[in-house]
Amino acid sequence: MKLYTFWRSIATFRVRMALNLKGINPEVEYVDLLKGHQHGDYKTVNPQKLIPALVLDEGGPPLFQSMAIMEYLEETYPQPPLLPKDGRGRARVRGLSQVVVSDAHPLSVPRIRNYLTQTLKLSHDQMHEWVRHWQVEALQTLETLLSRDKETGRYCHGDAITIADICLVGQAVGSSFFDVGIKPFPTVERIVNTCLENDAIARAHPLKQPGAAAPA
Amino acid sequence: MKLYTFWRSIATFRVRMALNLKGINPEVEYVDLLKGHQHGDYKTVNPQKLIPALVLDEGGPPLFQSMAIMEYLEETYPQPPLLPKDGRGRARVRGLSQVVVSDAHPLSVPRIRNYLTQTLKLSHDQMHEWVRHWQVEALQTLETLLSRDKETGRYCHGDAITIADICLVGQAVGSSFFDVGIKPFPTVERIVNTCLENDAIARAHPLKQPGAAAPA
Repeated sequence: MKLYTFWRSIATFRVRMALNLKGINPEVEYVDLLKGHQHGDYKTVNPQKLIPALVLDEGGPPLFQSMAIMEYLEETYPQPPLLPKDGRGRARVRGLSQVVVSDAHPLSVPRIRNYLTQTLKLSHDQMHEWVRHWQVEALQTLETLLSRDKETGRYCHGDAITIADICLVGQAVGSSFFDVGIKPFPTVERIVNTCLENDAIARAHPLKQPGAAAPA
Repeated sequence: MKLYTFWRSIATFRVRMALNLKGINPEVEYVDLLKGHQHGDYKTVNPQKLIPALVLDEGGPPLFQSMAIMEYLEETYPQPPLLPKDGRGRARVRGLSQVVVSDAHPLSVPRIRNYLTQTLKLSHDQMHEWVRHWQVEALQTLETLLSRDKETGRYCHGDAITIADICLVGQAVGSSFFDVGIKPFPTVERIVNTCLENDAIARAHPLKQPGAAAPA
């Protein structure tokens, strides 16, 4: 198994957390997004020119999209489970995850920031405010849901780590790269800090990967 | 079971297709997004103020996020299946779906269009071009993947309708609302047209819902 990865990619961070939690150690290959390596040979791996991509030992086209990869890992390596057993619980975990994966993160990725500053000629401040706006909105939504629902426990859903926690930690770390903190969102903050005490999650952190630099 | 729905919502269109394909006819309640009804009482149903939301007969907080709801329906009402049986196939279907659900659709929803025109004071033409840019990019990615992979059949994955087809049809219909056609993407066009011959999909179409109007 081979993971295409880069320290700065939050979507890849999610998959690294899932792999670590499942005790899987794939070969890795680095795609330096800041140097534009996704536009080179990598596009034959993933035509969307996004990471992560996961090549299976059996060969064939790589898996892509972090949620699809995490669902694959869950089905193929069921221990420890990263989804609850009951249907409603699974829907809640997936719903919380998609708040991050669909409604927040895609609005702040490099191609969007580049379009804002290069095509629309917006200022760096306007771009930054755009990112902050959607990150704060997502964190507020997550805080509202997590503080409302009795299913919230030590983690997003009960007392075991799920894909929702993986997505939440990715959201928090990604937001921190744009100076958006989680202090105003106490339930989010509590769960993120609890997650970061887990070694499998902590060592997947972007700033612990080769080549990592404190974001400008 | 009760579905909160509105003709113009592409995410709700996805869930309507899945429900119809599974032969489930929930009670429906309309949330007029164009009149801003999502900002009223509805926010107690879904604090994110987005549709769809699905209330289960057993009560409790509604399910939210279209992918999470479709996964729930698949697990709870397995016939006919909307995911293949094999792990790699399931990952491919979910990956194709997320190209739409995460990387394209969230960039064109009302809150984004409003931010572009109201907060950033961009022109209607600039907003429209933004939407077109990301819709075309997603359709191009889907065309590349679907035309490349030998798993593509009558539908996105083999010869049975999956969640990927649901997402693809939603993408095509959503794009059409912004004058982005699918003619330049022959594999996409073929599959979408095949899907629209299916009655369960056809009658879920936005323009066949109560209150529907041809988009401006």
